[in-house]
Amino acid sequence: MHMLVDGEWQTEAYESTNEDGEFDRQETAFRDRVRDEPGAEFRPEAGRYHLYQSRACPWAHRAVVVRRLLGLEDVVSMDVVDPYREAHGWQFTPTKDGCTADTVNGADYLHEVYTAADPSFTGRVTVPVLWDRETGTIVNNESEEIIKMLADAFDEYGRHDVDLYPEDLRDEIDQVIDDIYDPINNGVYRAGFADAQSAHEDAVAELFDALEHWDDVLSDQRYLVGDRLTLADVCLFTTLVRFDEVYHTHFKCNVRRLVDYENLWGHTRELYQLPGVAETVNMDHIKEHYYTTHTDLNPKQLVAVGPEPAFDDPHGRDELPADPPAALRE
Amino acid sequence: MHMLVDGEWQTEAYESTNEDGEFDRQETAFRDRVRDEPGAEFRPEAGRYHLYQSRACPWAHRAVVVRRLLGLEDVVSMDVVDPYREAHGWQFTPTKDGCTADTVNGADYLHEVYTAADPSFTGRVTVPVLWDRETGTIVNNESEEIIKMLADAFDEYGRHDVDLYPEDLRDEIDQVIDDIYDPINNGVYRAGFADAQSAHEDAVAELFDALEHWDDVLSDQRYLVGDRLTLADVCLFTTLVRFDEVYHTHFKCNVRRLVDYENLWGHTRELYQLPGVAETVNMDHIKEHYYTTHTDLNPKQLVAVGPEPAFDDPHGRDELPADPPAALRE
Repeated sequence: MHMLVDGEWQTEAYESTNEDGEFDRQETAFRDRVRDEPGAEFRPEAGRYHLYQSRACPWAHRAVVVRRLLGLEDVVSMDVVDPYREAHGWQFTPTKDGCTADTVNGADYLHEVYTAADPSFTGRVTVPVLWDRETGTIVNNESEEIIKMLADAFDEYGRHDVDLYPEDLRDEIDQVIDDIYDPINNGVYRAGFADAQSAHEDAVAELFDALEHWDDVLSDQRYLVGDRLTLADVCLFTTLVRFDEVYHTHFKCNVRRLVDYENLWGHTRELYQLPGVAETVNMDHIKEHYYTTHTDLNPKQLVAVGPEPAFDDPHGRDELPADPPAALRE
Repeated sequence: MHMLVDGEWQTEAYESTNEDGEFDRQETAFRDRVRDEPGAEFRPEAGRYHLYQSRACPWAHRAVVVRRLLGLEDVVSMDVVDPYREAHGWQFTPTKDGCTADTVNGADYLHEVYTAADPSFTGRVTVPVLWDRETGTIVNNESEEIIKMLADAFDEYGRHDVDLYPEDLRDEIDQVIDDIYDPINNGVYRAGFADAQSAHEDAVAELFDALEHWDDVLSDQRYLVGDRLTLADVCLFTTLVRFDEVYHTHFKCNVRRLVDYENLWGHTRELYQLPGVAETVNMDHIKEHYYTTHTDLNPKQLVAVGPEPAFDDPHGRDELPADPPAALRE
């Protein structure tokens, strides 16, 4: 957690654990919404909103993928922080490959964006951040809510042939996102940041049980909620694309690799190969972030060479029905 | 290195690196030999020699395997240290599963055995140690030399149908042991203990190049020097049996797993399945040692759950000729 402690922005409390040694992820702070409704404070408009992003972070990556799949690159602008999160938290290092300056607020550190939105803010400084140029504040910094806004409120912008959050499936999509969160998306962090062996082993057991379950589900349906690609698939993808290069080693989730799960691995390759998605995956940023930032896990900051999973290999998921059948093909 | 520093036996210098961040393994100190020659100071005798061992350490494990394959359990006695090497180095914790007291010198710490042999000793305290009851000293603490003594000097004891160091193959065996030492046996340590990214990457590249080379060699010959099981195979085995559970994760050697190399993995399974060898592999000791002792690599001391390679699966190496064909079958 990058919190203001004794007048300094510090990351040290980020990997906080409870008395059982279990990783406790803190709540995010800004929870407003962009709504396509008359009178709403935050209305969808081209050029009004801005995403502060990290290429490293799986939560941030969700929004980058959704923005790309929906063709919103010219509607919602984006800056990218340094993958190495130093003592004062996420920062802007425009000289570094794949990073940008803060083109909206001119900040050096992301915490300045948070205090620009709320001068009294002293909480967690995380990515993604959805910034509103018009009111000069943060609309939301919770990844699940941001991707739902992008998929729901920006209907008249971007691609009109893609709906990642169809109304008739929303309950089911919400449920799947919720189901995979604790054991998988947050599960890898619970495994890696555990302070007690029992907490580590519990997290690892739940993680691999869940992977086996979803691998089985994907054996006879193309996507997590059936034959439509949805936000749920994106939420799984941004964790799994990091699995073999980072979580398997750095977070010690070494029971199996992603590539050992035929269907999860095929699903990950299919999403990776959707138009523009591969370009959202910056494995250099991903690896640098985890291996060098978490010095409480990896004091020497050595970056593992890694197995380089063959994300471009044919995914073979075409055997299963998809609706629409040519969704997202360019 | 457990050295006497300011009057305290300390391990902190164990993972010492040079100015390029490369791991430098220090030389061992006691280099005498048991010889089956008239007038030799250390003559082979049943009940005279004692091995101080760790179940965790791959160097120590070499001597445990050779002692077992040669049937020398009743000839050379053995004690086993605690797998957790604490600040004062290897210690005896007889209350712990798989550990023993020091039945010869009654020491609490292994450094006491070293100073019993040489009161002025202040160097590295390592396993294995070959102790001579008759003269009350350490004969040798270098694993390669100890296994050669066991295989050479104790001909009249133990099994007479097993020769792991046949005279006509000694040059070749020595060469192979030397060839695999730097990239593989010590290579995993060079990868894990590197203090510089370049040193880590160099070690990882050499390691996986060497594994590929020896996997290829083992595609059309049963053992490392041909159709005879020798000390060279044992030296490879004690590293590879630890690979997927420890080195792949803890030392970040995550380019491939052992089980991805058909022939190396078959070779490891064949050695594992030789009579008595499985009982020399204490995976609990191995995992506890690495994950909890090296706090400079793994400060939280979490022990990875691990992939549990199927060491008991049929090894399939019977297709290749072995000489003697039924060597070591009981």
